[in-house]
Amino acid sequence: MSIRVGIVGISGFGGGEAMRLVAGHPSFELVYAAGEGSAGSRLAERFPGVPARLAGLVIEKWDPAALPKLDLLFASLPTGTSAEALARVPKTVKIVDIGGDHRYVDGWAYGLADVWPAEIEGRTRIANPGCFPAATLTALAPLLSDRLIEPGSIIIDAKTGISGAGRGGADSRFGYAESNENLLPYGLLRHTHMPEMARTIERLGGGSAAGLVFTPHLVPMTRGVLATIYCRGRATTGECLEAARRFYAGRAFVRVTEAPPQTKWATGSNLAFVSYAADPERELVIAMSVVDNLGKGAAGQAVQNANLICGLPETAGLEGAPVWP
Amino acid sequence: MSIRVGIVGISGFGGGEAMRLVAGHPSFELVYAAGEGSAGSRLAERFPGVPARLAGLVIEKWDPAALPKLDLLFASLPTGTSAEALARVPKTVKIVDIGGDHRYVDGWAYGLADVWPAEIEGRTRIANPGCFPAATLTALAPLLSDRLIEPGSIIIDAKTGISGAGRGGADSRFGYAESNENLLPYGLLRHTHMPEMARTIERLGGGSAAGLVFTPHLVPMTRGVLATIYCRGRATTGECLEAARRFYAGRAFVRVTEAPPQTKWATGSNLAFVSYAADPERELVIAMSVVDNLGKGAAGQAVQNANLICGLPETAGLEGAPVWP
Amino acid sequence: MSIRVGIVGISGFGGGEAMRLVAGHPSFELVYAAGEGSAGSRLAERFPGVPARLAGLVIEKWDPAALPKLDLLFASLPTGTSAEALARVPKTVKIVDIGGDHRYVDGWAYGLADVWPAEIEGRTRIANPGCFPAATLTALAPLLSDRLIEPGSIIIDAKTGISGAGRGGADSRFGYAESNENLLPYGLLRHTHMPEMARTIERLGGGSAAGLVFTPHLVPMTRGVLATIYCRGRATTGECLEAARRFYAGRAFVRVTEAPPQTKWATGSNLAFVSYAADPERELVIAMSVVDNLGKGAAGQAVQNANLICGLPETAGLEGAPVWP
Amino acid sequence: MSIRVGIVGISGFGGGEAMRLVAGHPSFELVYAAGEGSAGSRLAERFPGVPARLAGLVIEKWDPAALPKLDLLFASLPTGTSAEALARVPKTVKIVDIGGDHRYVDGWAYGLADVWPAEIEGRTRIANPGCFPAATLTALAPLLSDRLIEPGSIIIDAKTGISGAGRGGADSRFGYAESNENLLPYGLLRHTHMPEMARTIERLGGGSAAGLVFTPHLVPMTRGVLATIYCRGRATTGECLEAARRFYAGRAFVRVTEAPPQTKWATGSNLAFVSYAADPERELVIAMSVVDNLGKGAAGQAVQNANLICGLPETAGLEGAPVWP
Repeated sequence: MSIRVGIVGISGFGGGEAMRLVAGHPSFELVYAAGEGSAGSRLAERFPGVPARLAGLVIEKWDPAALPKLDLLFASLPTGTSAEALARVPKTVKIVDIGGDHRYVDGWAYGLADVWPAEIEGRTRIANPGCFPAATLTALAPLLSDRLIEPGSIIIDAKTGISGAGRGGADSRFGYAESNENLLPYGLLRHTHMPEMARTIERLGGGSAAGLVFTPHLVPMTRGVLATIYCRGRATTGECLEAARRFYAGRAFVRVTEAPPQTKWATGSNLAFVSYAADPERELVIAMSVVDNLGKGAAGQAVQNANLICGLPETAGLEGAPVWP
Repeated sequence: MSIRVGIVGISGFGGGEAMRLVAGHPSFELVYAAGEGSAGSRLAERFPGVPARLAGLVIEKWDPAALPKLDLLFASLPTGTSAEALARVPKTVKIVDIGGDHRYVDGWAYGLADVWPAEIEGRTRIANPGCFPAATLTALAPLLSDRLIEPGSIIIDAKTGISGAGRGGADSRFGYAESNENLLPYGLLRHTHMPEMARTIERLGGGSAAGLVFTPHLVPMTRGVLATIYCRGRATTGECLEAARRFYAGRAFVRVTEAPPQTKWATGSNLAFVSYAADPERELVIAMSVVDNLGKGAAGQAVQNANLICGLPETAGLEGAPVWP
Repeated sequence: MSIRVGIVGISGFGGGEAMRLVAGHPSFELVYAAGEGSAGSRLAERFPGVPARLAGLVIEKWDPAALPKLDLLFASLPTGTSAEALARVPKTVKIVDIGGDHRYVDGWAYGLADVWPAEIEGRTRIANPGCFPAATLTALAPLLSDRLIEPGSIIIDAKTGISGAGRGGADSRFGYAESNENLLPYGLLRHTHMPEMARTIERLGGGSAAGLVFTPHLVPMTRGVLATIYCRGRATTGECLEAARRFYAGRAFVRVTEAPPQTKWATGSNLAFVSYAADPERELVIAMSVVDNLGKGAAGQAVQNANLICGLPETAGLEGAPVWP
Repeated sequence: MSIRVGIVGISGFGGGEAMRLVAGHPSFELVYAAGEGSAGSRLAERFPGVPARLAGLVIEKWDPAALPKLDLLFASLPTGTSAEALARVPKTVKIVDIGGDHRYVDGWAYGLADVWPAEIEGRTRIANPGCFPAATLTALAPLLSDRLIEPGSIIIDAKTGISGAGRGGADSRFGYAESNENLLPYGLLRHTHMPEMARTIERLGGGSAAGLVFTPHLVPMTRGVLATIYCRGRATTGECLEAARRFYAGRAFVRVTEAPPQTKWATGSNLAFVSYAADPERELVIAMSVVDNLGKGAAGQAVQNANLICGLPETAGLEGAPVWP
C-alpha cells in the first residue's frame, strides 16, 4: 500500500531533489506539491523530465488548511520560515523538515539517521540536519564515540557546491559568470550551522565543543560537500579507520575508505564517504567526509528519515549508485 | 528470475554508466565485468559508491573464452576494437554493443529503440546508435516520416559534453585546465558518425542524404548532447510539434516540448527532448534535440534495447527522473 | 598628453572590462566612473584588484549634467536605456556606446573596426557592434566582399558564454547551479542582433540577407563567442582562407587559422580568430569565428574604436596576449 | 635597452604564462623558447594569440650548449628535472627557476619577493616559491614577524585550481569529465611544498614549525589558490589587519582586505589578497590568502623577481588589472 506524500518548497533545489527521490520510491506516491515560485504550473513545466504519471500534478500555493489527505510531508523551505509554515499541519501527517527551523526544538527528533536511527523510528516530526553537519558529524561520530579526539579541539574547514546557497537567491554573486572560476570562504566564525554542530558534538563526545571552529567555503561546482576536519588526538590512521568501520558496520549509507574521499563519488546518492589521516606524534587527526549536499545533505537523508518513521526498509528508494562522471 | 549480465569496457564512461543502470535494474544481475584499465580491481575500488552487493566483484581482463554463464553482455569498447573483441562471444549470449563497430553490419540490428522498436524485439545482436545520431535522428524521424523536410537539405550543428570524447584519451586537450572555458568545433566534414546518420536519414525519409552537413562541437560540460538542425521545409512550428507528438505517442522516452530543450533536462536519464521552430516563409525548419550522451546516447539506450530483446518492459530500470540541478 | 576618460555602466561586465582596458592603456586616464549598482563605492570596493592609483575613485550615479571635463566616454548600459542616457552628453565628449541603442542610427558610425576602420576615424559617436555580430561579420566580411557566398543563404549557429547575458539579470536561470552543465538554444528566429547583422551583410555583400537564420546558444562558460556559419558557395577551403588573409592583411586583431578556432584562444584579448571549411561539390562553405564577448565583442572593440577616433595607434592598450589556460 | 629573455618549459602552463608576461613587458624581448612537447613549432602554433612580432619564433629543444645570447632565463620545468637542466647555463645568464629544484639550495636566493625584496636584488640565481608557499607565506609573514601567532600551531588548508597539477600529466584524473564537479584532498601529511614552508615559517617567526599541518585540495577551476590558515594567537582581527597593512605598506602586489578574499580577484595578475579573522577568546587567528597559481604563484612572481635582479621597477610588466569575470 502506498504512502501519500506531499512536498512543500518544490521550487527550490532541496524540494526538487525530494521530488526526484519520491518519484523513484517504491512505496511513496506524490499527491501534493507546493511552491512559491511555481504555483499554478504543472510539475512537467517545472521539471521537464518528471515521470509521465506525475507530469500533470499542479503545483499549489502552500496552505496547510487546504491539504489533501497526506501521510507524509517533506518541507524544504528557507530557514526562518518553516516553523510558522508547518505549525498548522495536522498531527496525523508525518513531517520531515529539510529546513533549519526545527533542529534541536522540542518535539522534533534530530534526524542524523546514520548515527542515531533508533531515536528516529517511531517519531512523527523529524528535523533533518544541515548539509555541513551531515558531512561533518558523520566523520566525527566514531572518533568522538571512542574518545579518540578532544571535543574542544575541532577545526572544520568545509567546502560546498553552489546549490548549497539555495535557488531563491537572485543574487549575481551566485550567477554563473561570477561564481565560475571563483572560490571563497564566507560566514567566518558565525555560520548558522555552528550551534547545531556544537550541540551534536557534545552529545557524541562527552565534552564541551565551545572551541569549535567552522569555516565554510563556496566552490565552483553544483553539488557536493567536503569537510576537512582537524582534531587533537593520539590515534593512528588505522585506529580511526577501524573505529569508523565498527561504528558503521551494517549501516547502508556510510562508506569508510582509505583514500581521501572525492565529492563526485557521492553525486546524486545518499552516501557519505569518510576517511582519516593521523599523525600521533603531532597528536593530529584529520577526518574527511564527503556527501552530496542535496542527497545525504538534504533530500536523501530526508527520505532515509521518512523510511525510518514509516516503518519501511531504511534503504527504500535510495539504492541507486551515484552518477559518474 | 534475474538475467545474468556482463559488461566489457567497464573502465570507460559508457561502461561505468551501464554498470550504474544494471545495478539499479529490477531484472538484471551483474555477474561479470571486464575492463582494460582496471582489471584486477574490485568494483568498489573503481566505483566507490557501487551498491554493497556488487562491491566485491573483481574486474577481469576481457577473454571471451573464459566467460561465466551470461544471458546478456553490454560492450562499451573503443570504436575499431569491438568487432574483434566480440567475435567469439557464444551465440547464446545476447549482446548490445554500445561502441561503433556493428552499426549497419549484417546480423546486427540498429538499435534506434524509440523509432524502430519492432526491429529490435526478438534479436540477439544490437548495435547501439552513436550519441550524435541518437540525438539527431530522434528529432528528425517524425519530420522525415511525414515528409515535412527535404532529406538532402539537412545541416546538423551538434554540441557535446567532454565525456563524449571518452575516458581513455590521456590527452591534455581534454584536461580540465584546457577544456574548461573552451568551446570548439572539430572533425569538420568528416566525423565518423556521418555514414550512420546519412543511412538512417535515407531509411526514414525516402530520399538521398548525400548533402548531409554535420559539425560537432566540444562544450565545457561533462554530459549532454544538443543538436540544432537546419532543414528546408514548408511546415509550421505547430505542424512539426504535432508530427512529433503523433510519432512518439505512447512512447516512454521522447518528450516533445514547445520550449527549446536544455541538456540539463536529461542528465542521468534515458530521455530525449525534441522541439521545433519553423518559418514557412523562409522554408526553414529548425529541429532541436537533447540527450544525455551517456544515457540515451549510450548506456540508457543500451538498457532500453536490452529490455526489448529480453522481453522485459521497455522502461525497466530506466524510470528515474533526471538529476537536477 | 593623456585623454580624460569616463565609463558609465561600470557595474556590469562590459563596463568592468572597459575599466580594465582603460586602466592599462598608455594614453587614457580614467577620471570618472558611473554605475547604478555600485554608486557611492570606491573603485577598489567593486574591483579589489584595480591598480592602486585608481583605487580611490568614487563611483557616481550617472548624471550627464554633472560630468567632469571628459574627452571620451565609454557607455555600457542595458539595451533600451543608452539612447536616453547619452542624449545630453556634451558634443565635445567623444562617445563609444557598447550597448545596442545606437547601431545604425543617424549620426553614429557602426564600429566594425576591423572591416571599416576608415569610416570610424574622425567621428565622435560610435556604436559598437554586438558580440554576435562582431564574431559573425568578421568571418563573413571577406567571403561577402569577394562574392564567395550567397548573402541570402546564411545560417548562423552561435554560441556564447554566460557573461553575454549580462550581470544585472538577477535571474536564477543564470545562476551557477542551473547554468553549469547546461546548454541551450534561445531566442529562436527573433534575436535582437538580427537586424544589425542582416543590414551589415547587405552592405558587405551586395545582396538581400532577408533569409538570414540566426540561432544563439548559451554555453556553460564565462567568456567566449563561437559562430559556426553555414553558407552556399562554390569556393574551396583554400580560397576562403586566402580571401580572409588578403582582406585582413596588415590588420592587427584578426587571425586567420587553418585549424578550427577555439574560444580560449581569445580570452581576455581583442582578437578574433576566423577559419573556413568548404566542400565545393555540395556548394557548402562553413565559416567559423571566435571572439571574447567582453573583448572584441564589447570593451576591446570599444577601445579599438576609441583609439581610431582619438587619433591613437589602433592597437594602443590592446596588445596583451590572451590569458591561457 | 631591452633585455634578451629566454624561456625553457614553454609547453607547460607556467611557461605559457611567463611567455604572456614577457610578451607584454616593456623591457623584455623574448628571443628564445624551448619546450619538450612543442619543439619545432612556431610560437603561434602553440599560442595562436601570441603578438604578431613573436609569432614566427621557433620553439627549440632545450640545449644549454646552444643558447643564443641571453640576459635572462625563465625556467619552468617539472620538479626533479631543473637542477640538471640548468646546471650548464652560462653564469652570465640570470635565471629565475619557477620549478622546485633550487628552493633553499646554496647559491640560489628564495624569491619571496613581497617579503624579502632586498635579498633578491643583486642576485643572479632565484628560486621562485611554489604556489602554495606563495599564498601561505604572504598571509603569515606579518603575523609571524609581529609574533602574533605561534609558529608551531599552524594548520594550512589549501585549495588549488587544476592547472596547479601541471599540463604534462596525461592523467584521466585531471581530465575534464572526472575533474569537473569534483573536489578532493590529496597528498595528506606529505606534500612536497612542506619543507619549503616550514623553513620559511621558521625564518619569519623565530620558532619551530615542526608541527606544521598542510592539506592541499584540488578544486574544479583552472586557476587560483586559496589558503585558509588556522593558528593559535591572541591578536584581534583588527590587530592582524593592521600588522599586514604595516608590513606591506608601500608594496605593490599585496592587498589587505577586510572581506574574505576570493580567487577570482587575482585571476591573471601578480596580486595576492590577504585577510584575517580572529577570536582572541579562543586564541584563534584565521589567516586567508588568495593568489593566481600561475601569477603570484608562478610566472608573475618570476617576473617580479626578474625585475628585481635586472634593476627594473618591481612592477614593470605586471601592472595589468585582473581579468574579471
